[in-house]
Amino acid sequence: MLGGYTGKLLQVDLTKNKIVEKSLSPEMIKAFIGGRGFGIKILFDEVKPRIDPLSPENKIIITTGPLAGTNAQSFARWIVTTKSPLTGTYFRSVGGGWFAPELKFAGYDLIVVEGKAEKPMYCWISDGKCEIKDASHLWGITTEETHRLIREETDPKARIVCIGPAGENLVRFACVVSDRRTAGRGGVGAVMGSKNLKAIAVRGTQKIGIADPDAFKNAVKKQIEIYKGSPFFDAFHGLGTNSVVTAFHELGHFPARNFKEWALEGVERFSPEELGKFVIKHYGCYGCIMACGKIHKVLKGPYSGIGWDHPEYETQWSFGAHCGNTNTESIIAANKLCDEYGLDTISTGYVIGFAMELYERGVISKYETGGLDLKWGNHEAMIEMVRRIALRDGLGNVLAEGAKRASEKIGRGAEKYAMHSKGLEMPAYEPRAAKAHGLSWATSPCGANHCIGWSKHEIVGIPRKVDPLTVENKGEICRYNQDETAVLETGIACIFPACFGLMTIELYAELLSSATGIKEFSDPKYLWLVGERIFNLERIFNVREGFVRKDDWLPERIQKEPVPGGPAKGQIFELKELLDQYYEARGWDKETGIPSRTKLDSLGLKSVSERLEEPRKFSK
Amino acid sequence: MLGGYTGKLLQVDLTKNKIVEKSLSPEMIKAFIGGRGFGIKILFDEVKPRIDPLSPENKIIITTGPLAGTNAQSFARWIVTTKSPLTGTYFRSVGGGWFAPELKFAGYDLIVVEGKAEKPMYCWISDGKCEIKDASHLWGITTEETHRLIREETDPKARIVCIGPAGENLVRFACVVSDRRTAGRGGVGAVMGSKNLKAIAVRGTQKIGIADPDAFKNAVKKQIEIYKGSPFFDAFHGLGTNSVVTAFHELGHFPARNFKEWALEGVERFSPEELGKFVIKHYGCYGCIMACGKIHKVLKGPYSGIGWDHPEYETQWSFGAHCGNTNTESIIAANKLCDEYGLDTISTGYVIGFAMELYERGVISKYETGGLDLKWGNHEAMIEMVRRIALRDGLGNVLAEGAKRASEKIGRGAEKYAMHSKGLEMPAYEPRAAKAHGLSWATSPCGANHCIGWSKHEIVGIPRKVDPLTVENKGEICRYNQDETAVLETGIACIFPACFGLMTIELYAELLSSATGIKEFSDPKYLWLVGERIFNLERIFNVREGFVRKDDWLPERIQKEPVPGGPAKGQIFELKELLDQYYEARGWDKETGIPSRTKLDSLGLKSVSERLEEPRKFSK
Repeated sequence: MLGGYTGKLLQVDLTKNKIVEKSLSPEMIKAFIGGRGFGIKILFDEVKPRIDPLSPENKIIITTGPLAGTNAQSFARWIVTTKSPLTGTYFRSVGGGWFAPELKFAGYDLIVVEGKAEKPMYCWISDGKCEIKDASHLWGITTEETHRLIREETDPKARIVCIGPAGENLVRFACVVSDRRTAGRGGVGAVMGSKNLKAIAVRGTQKIGIADPDAFKNAVKKQIEIYKGSPFFDAFHGLGTNSVVTAFHELGHFPARNFKEWALEGVERFSPEELGKFVIKHYGCYGCIMACGKIHKVLKGPYSGIGWDHPEYETQWSFGAHCGNTNTESIIAANKLCDEYGLDTISTGYVIGFAMELYERGVISKYETGGLDLKWGNHEAMIEMVRRIALRDGLGNVLAEGAKRASEKIGRGAEKYAMHSKGLEMPAYEPRAAKAHGLSWATSPCGANHCIGWSKHEIVGIPRKVDPLTVENKGEICRYNQDETAVLETGIACIFPACFGLMTIELYAELLSSATGIKEFSDPKYLWLVGERIFNLERIFNVREGFVRKDDWLPERIQKEPVPGGPAKGQIFELKELLDQYYEARGWDKETGIPSRTKLDSLGLKSVSERLEEPRKFSK
Repeated sequence: MLGGYTGKLLQVDLTKNKIVEKSLSPEMIKAFIGGRGFGIKILFDEVKPRIDPLSPENKIIITTGPLAGTNAQSFARWIVTTKSPLTGTYFRSVGGGWFAPELKFAGYDLIVVEGKAEKPMYCWISDGKCEIKDASHLWGITTEETHRLIREETDPKARIVCIGPAGENLVRFACVVSDRRTAGRGGVGAVMGSKNLKAIAVRGTQKIGIADPDAFKNAVKKQIEIYKGSPFFDAFHGLGTNSVVTAFHELGHFPARNFKEWALEGVERFSPEELGKFVIKHYGCYGCIMACGKIHKVLKGPYSGIGWDHPEYETQWSFGAHCGNTNTESIIAANKLCDEYGLDTISTGYVIGFAMELYERGVISKYETGGLDLKWGNHEAMIEMVRRIALRDGLGNVLAEGAKRASEKIGRGAEKYAMHSKGLEMPAYEPRAAKAHGLSWATSPCGANHCIGWSKHEIVGIPRKVDPLTVENKGEICRYNQDETAVLETGIACIFPACFGLMTIELYAELLSSATGIKEFSDPKYLWLVGERIFNLERIFNVREGFVRKDDWLPERIQKEPVPGGPAKGQIFELKELLDQYYEARGWDKETGIPSRTKLDSLGLKSVSERLEEPRKFSK
C-alpha cells in the first residue's frame, strides 16, 4: 500500500490485559477504505449476534480515515463503532477535534477494544508504544479533569478520548469526549464504561505519507477554493451550527415541546444576533479552515462565569425549544454539564423534555420527579435533571435508560410520548416537514440519527431543490444521502460541510486516491459502491439482531398528528408509502426490509448473502 | 550582585499601556532581600496615604524571592502586596505553585502594576519580552477556563495568575488564582479587577545563577535531610494540611458555628482516615518534595464527579465546622466554586457562616436571604451563597463587602457577630485557646491572618513548648513568630514547613547566602533585623493610614465570652494585658501602638522616623 496507509490496528484485550498490533489486509482496505467501513466490517465479523451490548463480548472499534492528519480539510474525525446499548443495533458515533490525527501520528489507523478490565484502566499510546494503565483514581470524575490529570501523567500534548461519570454509570446515552468534542450518540460511552475503560490517550510525532504529493496538493487547493467561495463559509465560520437555528426554524425544523408544537414563542432568543453575543473565541478541529468551533461565555444570571464550547444547533434545540426553554444561558450550562458528565446532549435534553410532557400531562407526579417542578421551560429543574441522569438518581435513573425503555418502565401510556426510532431519541428536525429526512431516521441503521442521511435536497436544496413535503422520489433521495454519507465517512469527512455541498464524492475521490495511491479510489462510481456496501452490511448486522421492516418506524405522533402550524402545517409522515419506495430504491425485500441476495452479491458481500438463503432466520 | 540576583522588575502602567524594565538598587536588595521585603518597601514608597484601594492609585506588587526556581525546597511562592480593599491596611497575600519560578526563568524578580486599563487586559511575559493584551473575551469567565484560553493563545506551558468573576465584581475578598493555588486573602483579586487586569501570564527558559554552587548544594542537601527526618513529613506528604484537622480540633482549634461552640458534633468526618478517602493524587509546588498538594474526588451524592484540589485545613473549617456542616463532599464543591470564581475560601466560608448565625438568631429573615433557608449545616444553601457572593446577587452583594462592612450595613446588632480583626475575617483557630496566636491576629498588619505569626510554640511546641492558655511572655513569643515569618517570606519560604520547624533562620541564611553570594545574608542576626525592619515598616504604613492601638483588636465574643468546652474551656482573650506586653516586646509606644523613633532608627528606617516627630499626625 502506498502513502503509508496500511490499516494498522491496535487490538486491546482488556480481559487479558494485552495489546497486539496488526495490519488489515489490502483487500479489506480496498473494499472498505477506512473509518466507518472498517468499523462495520470488524463489528460484523467479530461480534457474535444477540450479545448484551454492555457485556465483555461487545467491542469498541475506534477508527480514523486515510485523510486524518493530512492537509485535506475537515477530515480530523474518529468513529466509535459498537453495538449500541440504547438501540441494540449497529452504531457509529462520530467525533471531531484532534484525536484522530494524533492516533495517525502515533502510527495507527484504528483501535479495537475487547473484553473487560478487572478494574478501571486507560490506554496510553505513544509513538508505537502502548500500555494499559490503572485509572482507579480517575473513575468517578468528570471528563475535563480526566483530560487534565491524564495529560499530567503522560504528555501535556496527549490527545484523549474518555468517558465521564455517565459512561461509568452505564447511562445508555453516555458519550465519549475528546477535548469537549464528543462521539455523542448511541451510548458508546456506556460501552466503554462496561469495559472499565476510562480513556485512551495518544501522542504521536510521525509523519503521514502521501502517495502523490502534487496531485494531493492540487486537490486540497481545490477544496479550499470551494470552501472560501461558498456562501455558507462566513456563516459557519462566524457562528458554527448556531448560524442555522433561525433559518431551520423558519423551515419548520425547530419543533417545540416534544414535537407537539411547530415553534416556540420567544424563538428569537436563538437568532444569530442573539447567539452571536455569547461567542468569545473561534476555533477549528485539526486541519479545518471552517473552524466552526466556538467558545461561549455567560455574563448574566445564575449561570454567569461559564466559558465553554457552545451548544451546537442540536443542543440549542434539545435543551431549548424541545424543553420549552428560551433561557439560552441555561442551555450553555446544560451543555457544559453534559460534556463534563459525558452525556449525549441530544438524548439528555430529549428525555428531560419528554419527562416534562409526562409531568405536564400528569403521567408522572412531583413525587416521582423527586420534588422538581418539571414544567415546560423550568431551566433550573432541567439543569438538576442532567445531574440526576448522570448519577442515576431517582427519576434520573429511569431516564438514564433512554426514552423508549423509560416510557415502558413508567407505563400509563407514556410510550406514545417517547419520540424515538429504534430507541434513539429524535433530534432537532421535524420529519413531517422533510419526508426524505424523516425516512432516513426510520431506516437508518442507528435509529433517529440526523446526520447519517441528512436530506440536503429538502433542507438546503443541494444538489437540487425538491419539495420537502411531498413523498415523490423520497426513497431514492434518502438512499442517495445515506450512501453518500457512508462513502464520505470512510475518510472520515466531517458531515457538516458535506451537507452544504462543500464536499462531493468527486472531490473526495481526488483527495483519497492521491493520498493513498490506490487507483480504484479515483473512481467515484467505485466509491458509491463502497458506500452502498457499508450501508448494506450495517443493515445485515441489524437483521441478524432481529431488526426488520417493522422496526423502520417513527412514532405515532409523527405518523398521525398533523403539524399544527408553520410551513409544514397539516403534514403527517406517510411511513408505509415512503418505506415501500425506499426498499424499492434499495433493492431490498419489501415485506421484510431485508437486502436481497442479488443486491448483496452485487456489493461483493457474497459471504454474507450465502447465509441469507433463509432470510427469516435472521429475524426474531 | 552575584548569583544573577539583581532585583529586576517590570513596571506595568495600565493607564499608559506601557511596560518599563528596571532594577532595584543593591542597597534595597541588602536591606529587604526580596519577596515580602520588596513588597512593603515599594508599597510604602510609591502608594500615597489614604487612597481608595480600588482606585487606579493603588498598586499591585507581585514579588518572588531569591530562592524561587532553585533547588532549595518550598520556595516557589509569590506574594501580592497591595493596600487591601477589605482591611484598608497594607496587605501581603501569598500563593504557591509554579508562577514564581516561571517569572524568574523569564528574567524577572518582581512586577509592579499601576494605574487602570481602559478595558480588560492581560500581561504576557515571555523570556524578557512583555506585552499588554486584550482580555475582553476573558472577562466574566472562571479562572480554570481563563488558564486554558490564555495557554491556547500564548504558550501551553505558560504559568498564569488571574482573577475570576469575583475579582472583576470587586468582591472585597476576591483572590488571585494560579493553577488552583491562590493568593487568597485580603481581596487582592479585587484590586486586580479594579485595574481591569484579568491575568499575568509568564513563560521563561532562562537559568537561575547560583553564586556558590557547592555551598548551596550542601545547604539543600541538609534541608532535604531535615524534611525526610521529620515526623511531620509523612503526614504532610500523605494528606497535606488535612492531616492536622483532628489534632487541631483536639487542641480546641476547630471552633464551630462562628466561634460560639468549641467543637462540632460529627467532627470525626474530618479525621485523616475519612479525608484520606477522597485523595486520588499527590503533587507538589515547584521544587518541593513535601508535595502537600492533593487532588480530591467525590463519588457519592449531589457533588459526584468533582475532581479538584482538596480544600485546605482552613477551608475544611470555614465551610465545615464554622458553618455547622459535616458534609465533606459539599466542602470540596464549595472549594472548587471559590477557586473558579476567584474567592478566598476562608472569608467566603466565614461570611456564609456569619450569615447563618444572623439567620438563626432572626437578625436576617428568609426574605433577606432571597428564600434560602440559611440554617446551620444547610450545605445546598451554602453552595448557592458562594455563587451569589461572586456574582453580587442579593444577600451575596452585602456579604461580598466582607463581614465587617456587611454587619454595619445589616445593623440590628449584627456587628457583634462579625468575627474579624481590622476587617479580615477570622480563620480556623481559637484565639482564646492560644494567646500568642490570637495576639498575632490582633496585631498583624493584615488583620486576622493565621500565617503571619503562626504560634508554633503554643500549637505544636516548636521550638519549645509553652502553655497556650497563659498570657506570660506571649508578647515576646508573638513578636518572635511575626519577625521570623517576615524573614522567611523574603525567600519566599513556604510557611507550612516553617511552622513545624523544618525551616529555621539559620538554614535559610545558609541557602540564601550561598545562592546570592551576599555575605550579610549568612548572618542569622542580620536576617532577624531585616525581618523586624519589614514588620515595622508594615506597621508604619498602617499608622499612616490611621491604624493605631485601638485597631489592634479582637471581637467582643473572643474578649468576653468564655470558651464553652474543650481544652480551653472557660478561657477568654485578655486583649489589654497581651497588647501591653506586646508593645513592650516591640519597643513601640504603649499608648498609641506606634513604633518609637529609637526603634525605627535602630532598624535603619531613619527616613521614616524623621517623619514621625509628631507621631499622632499619622493617626486619624
